[in-house]
Amino acid sequence: MSADDDRYRRGLRRLDQIEPGAGNTLRDKLGDVAPELERLVVEFAYGDVLDRPGLGLREREIATVAALTALGTAGPQLRVHIAGALNVGVSREEIVEIIIQMAVYAGFPAALNGIAAARLAFADVEEGRRQPPAGGTP
Amino acid sequence: MSADDDRYRRGLRRLDQIEPGAGNTLRDKLGDVAPELERLVVEFAYGDVLDRPGLGLREREIATVAALTALGTAGPQLRVHIAGALNVGVSREEIVEIIIQMAVYAGFPAALNGIAAARLAFADVEEGRRQPPAGGTP
Amino acid sequence: MSADDDRYRRGLRRLDQIEPGAGNTLRDKLGDVAPELERLVVEFAYGDVLDRPGLGLREREIATVAALTALGTAGPQLRVHIAGALNVGVSREEIVEIIIQMAVYAGFPAALNGIAAARLAFADVEEGRRQPPAGGTP
Amino acid sequence: MSADDDRYRRGLRRLDQIEPGAGNTLRDKLGDVAPELERLVVEFAYGDVLDRPGLGLREREIATVAALTALGTAGPQLRVHIAGALNVGVSREEIVEIIIQMAVYAGFPAALNGIAAARLAFADVEEGRRQPPAGGTP
Amino acid sequence: MSADDDRYRRGLRRLDQIEPGAGNTLRDKLGDVAPELERLVVEFAYGDVLDRPGLGLREREIATVAALTALGTAGPQLRVHIAGALNVGVSREEIVEIIIQMAVYAGFPAALNGIAAARLAFADVEEGRRQPPAGGTP
Amino acid sequence: MSADDDRYRRGLRRLDQIEPGAGNTLRDKLGDVAPELERLVVEFAYGDVLDRPGLGLREREIATVAALTALGTAGPQLRVHIAGALNVGVSREEIVEIIIQMAVYAGFPAALNGIAAARLAFADVEEGRRQPPAGGTP
Repeated sequence: MSADDDRYRRGLRRLDQIEPGAGNTLRDKLGDVAPELERLVVEFAYGDVLDRPGLGLREREIATVAALTALGTAGPQLRVHIAGALNVGVSREEIVEIIIQMAVYAGFPAALNGIAAARLAFADVEEGRRQPPAGGTP
Repeated sequence: MSADDDRYRRGLRRLDQIEPGAGNTLRDKLGDVAPELERLVVEFAYGDVLDRPGLGLREREIATVAALTALGTAGPQLRVHIAGALNVGVSREEIVEIIIQMAVYAGFPAALNGIAAARLAFADVEEGRRQPPAGGTP
Repeated sequence: MSADDDRYRRGLRRLDQIEPGAGNTLRDKLGDVAPELERLVVEFAYGDVLDRPGLGLREREIATVAALTALGTAGPQLRVHIAGALNVGVSREEIVEIIIQMAVYAGFPAALNGIAAARLAFADVEEGRRQPPAGGTP
Repeated sequence: MSADDDRYRRGLRRLDQIEPGAGNTLRDKLGDVAPELERLVVEFAYGDVLDRPGLGLREREIATVAALTALGTAGPQLRVHIAGALNVGVSREEIVEIIIQMAVYAGFPAALNGIAAARLAFADVEEGRRQPPAGGTP
Repeated sequence: MSADDDRYRRGLRRLDQIEPGAGNTLRDKLGDVAPELERLVVEFAYGDVLDRPGLGLREREIATVAALTALGTAGPQLRVHIAGALNVGVSREEIVEIIIQMAVYAGFPAALNGIAAARLAFADVEEGRRQPPAGGTP
Repeated sequence: MSADDDRYRRGLRRLDQIEPGAGNTLRDKLGDVAPELERLVVEFAYGDVLDRPGLGLREREIATVAALTALGTAGPQLRVHIAGALNVGVSREEIVEIIIQMAVYAGFPAALNGIAAARLAFADVEEGRRQPPAGGTP
């Protein structure tokens, strides 16, 4: 097994821990236009970075939800990571608090749009969807 | 005691827990031009939001360090909140991991500039400075 | 009456002056997921900040429309504040000029997307809607 | 012929070279609310800037696709410029590489959303659409 | 006189009204590397856009100060436009209010950094500087 | 030789092609605080992404200069990549054109600050500096 295969494997394991099934969805979405991007996401984001020791997965998802809410340019990814945060032990109440706190650092529109993403993500989870409904932007 | 005084008092206690002495520095910096902004920061950011239950202070500072690193427009505030994160129990290693992780969500320049802020903040702490040296932008 | 109730009351009055009925819509949207955020918006944004003396409401809405157009991450809020600007005496022509001017400071895409928001907001007003149609992101 | 007419004429020629027919679409979209913005776009963006010597059109569209992907706030414009890049000789493979590269400088969400825009733009071209379907934001 | 010369002349008159002497400073700063950018700034930003009827200069500078504070990426330009706002009749108190208001829409770091720019701009004016001291970034 | 060593080696070769000596500087800057980030930059940014076929290095640096100018949050990295663009065959005139073009897509402040970075980078090259002077932010 090559080291790249190993990174991919470790990345996939991490990804499945945070967002079970997200690997397939990502592959479907990128497949025909940019199949290599899926590999870079899994290998680098999940295999190289999120798999590093030194910070718990719970803390990592708190950081991601905060950053994506503050940036305000990553709606689809925020929705996925809110579900991911739930999967690694961040509670709904904590997620809502993180998003509200972003009003202080990135303004109220960022927080309000973050709550809109949380509503969608919480509904995804309640209705058993692992990922945003087909047709949504990746 | 009015409710606003109470918010201010609660905010100041929270602020001192995260960044001891930061209240004075903020007052010095804003004093002549926008003294009211200090009150709004203490009352709203610290009294209303950071004092809310539902999320630990450690988690709150993780969220803030992540968001400010990702935004890339808040260098002076990031420096202060890295020191604040240390004060509420986030380790240096964890802070560095949060910042590195932002390479995934906001790009490498954001992470590299975040590490530059961490170097300054870690030096502030080592040299016993509670706040960035006088003359720095607030 | 506690001071917080007073802030809330002042905020609500301000909010109704800018966007009549927006308080209800906001409550509906946030209700189940983050009810407290409505209170923070009304108390802080409208009660503490927009209610301050020293700047007219007309000027405040000019500033908000400009900022939200430039940021480009707050489409739903821009739509609401364009209607709000009309309500406090900014003319359609002035709103269009503010948005066009943002091409200079934030680029043409920001201005073009701002005009798209203005078209929606002007239609909201013409068709008697006080707020974006149900189903829109808050 | 006045110099402004000349700028407009040069701009329109440039615009038609990059995105044939886009002038009409832009006029339709802005017509009733901000007709003057169409003139500023054509005269300044295309007549004054994109018509300048010193950089090839191919390079100019590479720069635009990169910047709009990185900013993440200009989805409709990115879609149009991806088609424009194809029109001036940037290949699909090159466009995908530019967008993937933005993961390094602006993060993976920017790259993933850029690929989503590329899928839409590639489909526009395949289906013979010169511009996004009616009803889309400009 | 060509139409472009006319645009340049009108732009320069507008620029001198807002920031007397800023034309020279801009020319000095750009001169050897990008002399043409000065012409584009004067002709387009000041001649084409800021010279348009339909919005007063006072309102235009309010919009610019708000937008640059919210963006957080234009420190040198914000400093110049705060002085410009004073020159067209916006009071210090009003400028401070605009900047404080941005805490609501872009977060407290944006407002705090905006106040830092206001302190520099107010000092520029008190000390008779028309522009930031030599050596500063343009 | 492991696959990771191979990625690192390929990345370093790519990095040296674009910015000779930048690897050492980066190591110096990150060394004590975040040594692993250097490895991630070299392996991922240069080894995985910039080393991909399908887009020339010249085009890649055009894309990077455009994106960093537009973002406005990556001053130190923009300075380095302007020098890098020169090293892979982008002319000064072309670099200036790319930056000026960003006025259209990200506004004039972004372009003006980009030109300021270009002046520093051109001086670095003239004075034989491979990297920004010691003490500058990475």
